[in-house]
Amino acid sequence: MTAKNAFYAQSGGVTSVINASACGVIETARAHPDKIANVYAGRNGIIGALTEDLIDTNLESAENIAALRYTPSGAFGSCRYKLKSLEANKREYDRLIEVFKAHDIGYFFYNGGGDSADTCYKVSQLSEALGFPVQAIHVPKTVDNDLPITDNCPGFGSVAKYIATSTLEASFDVRSMCATSTKIFVIEVMGRHAGWIAAAGALVADQGIPVLTLFPEVEFDQDKFLAAVKVKVADHGYCIICVSEGCHYPDGRFLAEQGTRDAFGHAQLGGAAPVVANMVKDALGHKFHWAVADYLQRAARHLASKSDVEQAYALGKTGVELAIAGHNAIMPTVVRKSSSPYVWEIGHAPLSEVANVEKFMPADFISADGFGITDKCREYLYPLIQGEDYPPYENGLPRYVTLKNAPVPRKLGAFAL
Amino acid sequence: MTAKNAFYAQSGGVTSVINASACGVIETARAHPDKIANVYAGRNGIIGALTEDLIDTNLESAENIAALRYTPSGAFGSCRYKLKSLEANKREYDRLIEVFKAHDIGYFFYNGGGDSADTCYKVSQLSEALGFPVQAIHVPKTVDNDLPITDNCPGFGSVAKYIATSTLEASFDVRSMCATSTKIFVIEVMGRHAGWIAAAGALVADQGIPVLTLFPEVEFDQDKFLAAVKVKVADHGYCIICVSEGCHYPDGRFLAEQGTRDAFGHAQLGGAAPVVANMVKDALGHKFHWAVADYLQRAARHLASKSDVEQAYALGKTGVELAIAGHNAIMPTVVRKSSSPYVWEIGHAPLSEVANVEKFMPADFISADGFGITDKCREYLYPLIQGEDYPPYENGLPRYVTLKNAPVPRKLGAFAL
Repeated sequence: MTAKNAFYAQSGGVTSVINASACGVIETARAHPDKIANVYAGRNGIIGALTEDLIDTNLESAENIAALRYTPSGAFGSCRYKLKSLEANKREYDRLIEVFKAHDIGYFFYNGGGDSADTCYKVSQLSEALGFPVQAIHVPKTVDNDLPITDNCPGFGSVAKYIATSTLEASFDVRSMCATSTKIFVIEVMGRHAGWIAAAGALVADQGIPVLTLFPEVEFDQDKFLAAVKVKVADHGYCIICVSEGCHYPDGRFLAEQGTRDAFGHAQLGGAAPVVANMVKDALGHKFHWAVADYLQRAARHLASKSDVEQAYALGKTGVELAIAGHNAIMPTVVRKSSSPYVWEIGHAPLSEVANVEKFMPADFISADGFGITDKCREYLYPLIQGEDYPPYENGLPRYVTLKNAPVPRKLGAFAL
Repeated sequence: MTAKNAFYAQSGGVTSVINASACGVIETARAHPDKIANVYAGRNGIIGALTEDLIDTNLESAENIAALRYTPSGAFGSCRYKLKSLEANKREYDRLIEVFKAHDIGYFFYNGGGDSADTCYKVSQLSEALGFPVQAIHVPKTVDNDLPITDNCPGFGSVAKYIATSTLEASFDVRSMCATSTKIFVIEVMGRHAGWIAAAGALVADQGIPVLTLFPEVEFDQDKFLAAVKVKVADHGYCIICVSEGCHYPDGRFLAEQGTRDAFGHAQLGGAAPVVANMVKDALGHKFHWAVADYLQRAARHLASKSDVEQAYALGKTGVELAIAGHNAIMPTVVRKSSSPYVWEIGHAPLSEVANVEKFMPADFISADGFGITDKCREYLYPLIQGEDYPPYENGLPRYVTLKNAPVPRKLGAFAL
């Protein structure tokens, strides 16, 4: 078998460790030049494949590829572009195969979440039917932690470590000030459908912090919530609230959209955090502060979890090894062998079982009152935030890499998206 | 001379390194038992002195005092409680002296910002007049970086490092996504009167990031701002905006208060960041994300600047040494000897020259267009964010200390605040 080229693309919202997976893919491919000649990356994800805008990763130094391991974000650009079903846009799948043929691409590594697992699965099924076999491997990534089968998703552990640490630090701050000043601190975290990240904020309860967590999985009950805040402030002098952006009322309305309008009638500007903070102020009168972490949380490579970085790299590496071994239509997974001590290995799952399946927080991970987590959830979360993996610093700031991202010469005509 | 006791209190908003100063005070006092018998800390700052609610730091282990060096927040509690002028409340100054007498306190270490420098100065002037000499030393602290004479203020360097790093990380994230998704990212930072923290966000321009900074020192000009955003997006595909909470219109209105009302007519909920983000969306149509760092920035001990931690400790240590040497009514200061390499030493300034003087960003630190910083500002800032000083971690989270904070037995009657 002569060596084929590989295509690698980053898809959807980026994370602080998706480049560690890219590093795993590229370094492992470079170690097998007899099987993989070049790794071409899609500029801005799958769009790069459709528009034949490929990046020649061979032109990047080994040092720069190694630096991907500690560089957050998507080094080749990502995109929010979901391929429709084959029926709806066979034209796009045909184009993918056309580009793969033109550039002798035999391996398709797609690094993303649920939607891209579905795309990857479709590519794996179609390529042979369309006359050009490509082995399609999905490398998991998502801070939402909602992919099935794998124990967790790269990107999540680092966000969890960041949110737990930041909530702990802000809690210490508020504890210092609450006698005469701020008594309520609200931190808003990502997670529109699943409360995995909010659950990480709840970990600070183990250090004696009075924290209430508002999950998307639990319908928001204002009276019950305010009563719980009142008790925490009475007992501790302050209360920390970790609210998921997906927290919503029983009728489905998000807390963040409660009809707020500016002077010109524009829809509300804030997130869930200011809504919750003002709600407490109106009902109980306490001084508050609030923070919205937004992209800071998923980009915070400076505080990545070591196990998360190692797994992100290993999943990329194993993805390539599985491809070389002849696999198609699979996703490498994290398999937990033990929580304490934390022992894991890389397994794999067929994409047919991954595509279109979302994993939510199990009901028995949320405490009976709905505002905290159970021991079972703690046992799940703590291993994922273990260990630190600091980037190098230069001149006081992390030394992250920006690649050259030189294009592979085009061979085909233009393609309209 | 027999040993006297010392009083130490933390004042105003806490920082990630104010406990490093406490560590410097207590460890240095412990090294001089012939001069300082005990360090009593005020519970919740000066309120602890007024209400005779003193904490016996002698009951804390050497290990726990050492852990203050890497623990954010105010370990003894802080407060927002400003002593009025002597004319307005001689009663409170009399009470302070009464408490100092009852507990044989000969040293008053006040760890705070501008307001507390004024209080400390008043105490230094009054104690002798009221018949009980106390040496009053002000240990500087404020993320606002607005104390005069000292080159910088402990707490600021770490916030600057956090904001510069976080802005850099989020910028990489947006750069990855901007082809098909988020093109505008707004991060709101502290600084109601001075733009020192916002200036730290501007440092990412040195890494090729298209960033616009909105300072409180520069009156907000919406047309000029939107034109600048348009150019950045045209040139780079995205734009990062670092807005100070104190950014305001020419008439003094903060951006954060632009008349937004919720469905019930309550005043707006958001901060400056969502206002700026929506303004860009309305004018230019770009998809945005925004973050409000709030307390996360000033509590982020996990990313403290090494020089900041060292200076915070050294200022506490020198404060005690100056007291022992007989000084009164002074503040130890950071003196910059050289920016590159960064060389500093501890000096001191009379409180008469510190009290009631605020230091703003010099005009020549802000670029001509008002949206960035000058090389002079860069030369000032970079040394302050140099070096990392990580806390120890346990179980995936920083191992911060919570002290016992056992009370000193009361000797006096109650005092109504």
